[in-house]
Amino acid sequence: MIRVGIVGYGNVGRGAESAVLQSEDMVLTGIFTRRDPASVHPLRAETPVFPVSFLMEQEADVDVLLLCGGSATDLPVQTPELAQRYCVVDTFDTHARIPEHFANVDAAAKAGKTAAVISTGWDPGLFSLMRLLGTSILPDGTGDTFWGPGVSQGHSDAVRRVEGVADARQYTIPVQKTMSAVRKGESGFTAREKHTREVYVVLKEGADPQRVAREIITMPNYFDEYDTTVHFISAEEMAAEHAAMPHGGFVIRSGKLGEARQYASLMEFKLELDSNPMFTGAIMAAFGRACCRLHEQGQTGCFTVLDVPLGLLSPLSAQELRKKLV
Amino acid sequence: MIRVGIVGYGNVGRGAESAVLQSEDMVLTGIFTRRDPASVHPLRAETPVFPVSFLMEQEADVDVLLLCGGSATDLPVQTPELAQRYCVVDTFDTHARIPEHFANVDAAAKAGKTAAVISTGWDPGLFSLMRLLGTSILPDGTGDTFWGPGVSQGHSDAVRRVEGVADARQYTIPVQKTMSAVRKGESGFTAREKHTREVYVVLKEGADPQRVAREIITMPNYFDEYDTTVHFISAEEMAAEHAAMPHGGFVIRSGKLGEARQYASLMEFKLELDSNPMFTGAIMAAFGRACCRLHEQGQTGCFTVLDVPLGLLSPLSAQELRKKLV
Repeated sequence: MIRVGIVGYGNVGRGAESAVLQSEDMVLTGIFTRRDPASVHPLRAETPVFPVSFLMEQEADVDVLLLCGGSATDLPVQTPELAQRYCVVDTFDTHARIPEHFANVDAAAKAGKTAAVISTGWDPGLFSLMRLLGTSILPDGTGDTFWGPGVSQGHSDAVRRVEGVADARQYTIPVQKTMSAVRKGESGFTAREKHTREVYVVLKEGADPQRVAREIITMPNYFDEYDTTVHFISAEEMAAEHAAMPHGGFVIRSGKLGEARQYASLMEFKLELDSNPMFTGAIMAAFGRACCRLHEQGQTGCFTVLDVPLGLLSPLSAQELRKKLV
Repeated sequence: MIRVGIVGYGNVGRGAESAVLQSEDMVLTGIFTRRDPASVHPLRAETPVFPVSFLMEQEADVDVLLLCGGSATDLPVQTPELAQRYCVVDTFDTHARIPEHFANVDAAAKAGKTAAVISTGWDPGLFSLMRLLGTSILPDGTGDTFWGPGVSQGHSDAVRRVEGVADARQYTIPVQKTMSAVRKGESGFTAREKHTREVYVVLKEGADPQRVAREIITMPNYFDEYDTTVHFISAEEMAAEHAAMPHGGFVIRSGKLGEARQYASLMEFKLELDSNPMFTGAIMAAFGRACCRLHEQGQTGCFTVLDVPLGLLSPLSAQELRKKLV
């Protein structure tokens, strides 16, 4: 059995917990939190909860840690620190800073003789794998990634910071017409042409809806380059209809093969998820398994999803996979 | 530059040739054929053509061979034989015999200190990778593979063997209603519920269409478990409308996450190909690149697509991939 520890018990941490409990070859040996451990209530009462400081002070009973903190401030510090002592998997998703994060984690993991897999999850993660397949098999082609329909946590948070907003949820919606064009090999679409944004807002008492809507729609980086619709709803409607965290998306690659580029070829990958954090946790669990196996093979250092043979994600042996699945 | 040789110059061989010519980091150093080399006309006149016997008699100027023969009789002999001397990639697609083929090729490649990647292409191959991701990330789930709409070479050949048939083309069509049900997590469908078959036949003069149709529709293994429609057409219609070899398919995985399995999750991969052999050749070229890199890393023996880190398929370095694509 693979002994798994979970670091950070937010939505993704609970997703990872649920996925580990679903895995026949894994046992959850601890949840590590910055909160008061007594305030954390795991799905199974017998799962021990430790302060996160335990990990560096003592030797925790784990083969791999699933790091479920945030990319802005938690993981840049936590992943290299913990990689000095443990095999670790994270979901670092700040695309522009991946090379720097990789270098830090690689140095720590090599020094500690551990293995680390960073930037798992679905984007980066599964979608990176799909972009890789698309560009490698169809080099003479075009393609694009679309997100949604689904809730963007970052955009929801940005709206909540607008004065007069009590609560908010932002849905990213891919534009069907643009997806159809990308499938046919067209490219060069703007942000506005690719996605629309739908915002559901609960106002604070006395707030001016017109001002709030204007501030949202013109917000730089988050909304000004998109067509955004703002809906005002009650707190009861928010709780009843917008509590879930669905998400999904598409990776489309359209290429031309043949000496005269006469053969169109389309590769498309789609996700439709009732719960973004549950699916992210499930991917982390599978890469936790792969991380342990890489380490068992004697491999150390940092890996991305592109460096891991995918067969290592399965609880089945390579021999069983050749028999049943290839 | 990676020096590539192509063994076998049928439809897939021409697909591989075209893909190698599209790859900036590859050079096609030879086509190896069982036919008279003078009768083979490569896309570029400067590409040398050799008898296949050259490969075992002399040392060919190649880093990797793409083996484009058939799985029934060519590859079971050719892949292990050539793996003794060269890095090789094949498309062996007899699913039930993959373990045996793997063992033969592995022994030969280890003895010859070469690397071999077997069963590339799209099924087995890309679809194997997708099945692996689906079952590993969503263990509590169901899923299925659908093929088409597209031409099945094997079924077309079977119809051509019926007395009175001058030419034939068989299209496999996935049943939309069943695909929708699989996306929702339903399972246990029969062959008949998953695919229909459409056959276009040119009759020989004097042949009885009723008897031919009956013989096709009741043919064991190939057609008796399916709903099959037979269309009789002229040789001119066959040439004008059925010369292409389109294909494609779907790998669908539907799973439940969360402690009460309350979160539905759908992963779906789709291919739509104007030309099955061109796309197969493109995949072979990418795995040819990966095969050379595994060998450069000092790895020897046999690999399937599940054993190869997918980053090795790209002409970009791991560092560039982390910067641009992850």
